[in-house]
This record gives sequence, C-alpha cells and structure tokens, in this order.
Amino acid sequence: MRLRNKPWAKEKIASYPHYVIPHPEQYKGRWKEVFGNDHPIHIEIGTGKGKFITEMAKLHPHINYIGIELYPSVLVSALDKLIENELPNVRLLNVNAKDLTNFFAEGEIERIYLNFSDPWPKKRHEKRRLTYRAFLELYEKVLVDEGEIHLKTDNQGFFEYSLVSFSQYGLVLTYVSLDLHHSDFAGNVMTEYEEKFAAKGNRIYRCEAKYPPKHRFA
Amino acid sequence: MRLRNKPWAKEKIASYPHYVIPHPEQYKGRWKEVFGNDHPIHIEIGTGKGKFITEMAKLHPHINYIGIELYPSVLVSALDKLIENELPNVRLLNVNAKDLTNFFAEGEIERIYLNFSDPWPKKRHEKRRLTYRAFLELYEKVLVDEGEIHLKTDNQGFFEYSLVSFSQYGLVLTYVSLDLHHSDFAGNVMTEYEEKFAAKGNRIYRCEAKYPPKHRFA
Repeated sequence: MRLRNKPWAKEKIASYPHYVIPHPEQYKGRWKEVFGNDHPIHIEIGTGKGKFITEMAKLHPHINYIGIELYPSVLVSALDKLIENELPNVRLLNVNAKDLTNFFAEGEIERIYLNFSDPWPKKRHEKRRLTYRAFLELYEKVLVDEGEIHLKTDNQGFFEYSLVSFSQYGLVLTYVSLDLHHSDFAGNVMTEYEEKFAAKGNRIYRCEAKYPPKHRFA
Repeated sequence: MRLRNKPWAKEKIASYPHYVIPHPEQYKGRWKEVFGNDHPIHIEIGTGKGKFITEMAKLHPHINYIGIELYPSVLVSALDKLIENELPNVRLLNVNAKDLTNFFAEGEIERIYLNFSDPWPKKRHEKRRLTYRAFLELYEKVLVDEGEIHLKTDNQGFFEYSLVSFSQYGLVLTYVSLDLHHSDFAGNVMTEYEEKFAAKGNRIYRCEAKYPPKHRFA
C-alpha cells in the first residue's frame, strides 16, 4: 500500500485509547476483560483501512475482533470507521506483528486473518512474508488448539508460497479457492484493496488452514 | 477425453505383450525383474495417448515408467509410441487404477503422476476423483516411504479439491504452481491434452505432494 504522510495520525490515534489500545502488552491474557465477555477473538494482521474488520464485526457481533496495523497513517482510517460505527467488538493495535506474543497469551486467539499481505516477492525477503515459517510459529503460540488462519491475496506467487509454507509447517488446508469472486463462497467481506484489484479483473485467491493438535509431539 | 471406438485396439494390444503387460498381477513385487534393473519406478495413472510417459522415459533413462490406462482405444496410441521409440524403460497396463494393489507390492513405486485426470465435478461423483481419500490410501499402499504424487490439471475445481484432499490426508505440499506455463518450472513435459488446452490460453495447475513417513502412527 502506498503510504501518505499524515503527521496528525499518531496524535489522533492517541486520543482514542478505547479503540486503539495504547499499551496492549498490559492486556496479555486478559483480553476478555477488555471486551467484557468471553466471545472468541479473531485478529487481522495488517488491518489497513479497516473495512474488512469493521464489516466482519457488524456481521458477527458475537466475535471479538482485533486489528493489528503497523502504519498510523493507515490505521487512522480504520479508527474513523470505529468512531463512526461505535462497534463494541473491535479494538485496534498500532504494533508490529513480530511482537505478537507480547500482546497475547497462549490460546487467547481463535483465528488469524491475513488479507492481501505484502508479498515480498524477492527470495531474499522471504523472512518478511507473513506466512514464513517463523511467523507460523509465532501464530501457533497465541492460537487455541487447532486454531485457524484465513488468507486472501491477489498475488499468485504469495499464494503458492503460502500453501506450501502452511503445508510444510504441518497446517492442514481445509479450503482453497483459486478464484474467490467466481466461486460459490458465501459471505465474503471485501477489503479496500480487494475491491480495487477485483475491479481490475485480478483473481482473488483464498484459503483456510488449521493448525494440527498441539499434543502431536507429546 | 472423447473416446473413438477402435474395435481392433484390444487385439493390437494383445499382440505386444512385451509393452502392454497382459497379466500384471503376476509381477506384483517383481517389477525389477520385468525391467531387468532396480531403478526407481514411477507410474502414471491415466496415461492416455502416452506422450508424457514416453518423453519422460527418454529424458530419464534411469527411471522405469509404467503407464496405466483403462481404455484400449487410447492406450493403443501410447503403444504406438513405444513401438516407434523402442524404449526399454516403459511398460503399459490396460487396467483399472482401483485395482492398483493387485499389481504392485508395498513400497514398489516411488512416484505417481496424475495428469489431467477426469475432474468428476459433480459432488455425487467425488469418489471417482483420483485424488479422493480412498485413492490416496490406495497409492500409499504401493508407494515407498514418503512417496510422491505429481499432479497437473487445467481444471480449477479439481485442483482446489486435490490440494485440500492431499492436505487433509496428511500429505505435505512441496510445490504448487497456479500457472505452470508462465512459471520458472524447468523441464515440463506436456501431455497431448496439456498442449491443446494451453494453446487455448487455459492455465495449467501443478503440484507435488509427499506422503508423511509411514512410522507416524507407530
């Protein structure tokens, strides 16, 4: 995503601590308290301008959503959607996904969404891809037993890479679509990026993968 | 594939017992004797007119290939290619893949090729798809430990199905291409079907999957 410089973004984010949690490490293991209920928690890594997460939150009021986004200039748009919609089941974190285990305890998350992640196509950047082995290890640490990753992308190379990376890690693919917008998948919620690229006629790829039971090495 | 009736096909096949093995069950566990060496054996299920297997056999003289094809009217074209090329490392079987364990002993096969298999798109025909769970069990019985399946198809639905079926069975995807003819995959040998469909601009999908170690349940 091209980033516009918005020097006021950080300040705006800081003024809505109820929506963009300022020191999320203090809620590690206690996110149920933040939401005031014990509904399942789904996180989106790279939540961007927040269309996906806010629409999902409206459709699924009994799921709690946490959107993680590194860039304040983008996150501020997601914040605007929260302010406008007053959604009780969404929070945002302005943090780096690499630090995920600082913010969430083991088994605290039920599902991770990866939507149109940066594909980092150069081989030497493989470690930055959000489906690289080290990230899959990280996700496993915060997910429940047999937790899920739901991934969408328009990038063919990143999708091919992710399928193999998931499989080699031991995740089981439970759903694959190689052309989501011409499939019978119901209830797709589009991201901003997805709308733009689908309008150009790009194929959207989607998969769901499930971690193996944690007792597999026991 | 549309089948032309060739009443003479069975007769021609019967007259080349060196190429199309008449009673393959008698060689179960003894295919090394048939080839006169202990090179790895790769089989193609649904070998069709034999372009793939004969070209592969020329490129890889230290691999033994067995092509399996149910329809005599198609297999006869593969036979013609063997007669013309005098390839010592290819045999053909005019049998049904369902009976695979009648012809091969455990661990006798290193790799299985599935090229442009009938996709059987209707849900009620799922059991006929060559990547249905029951077939994956069958293949495992004749494959070596961590044996491989290499699959190509132009059928999107069949490819999606196969990726999920492989993964759910416990196979590990080691390679996925969602557009083989525009990838950097080297050494692709095209089937007759592949040439025709690629010429129309259809995408060709390809994957490699590996069985888990057999001691996994030990």
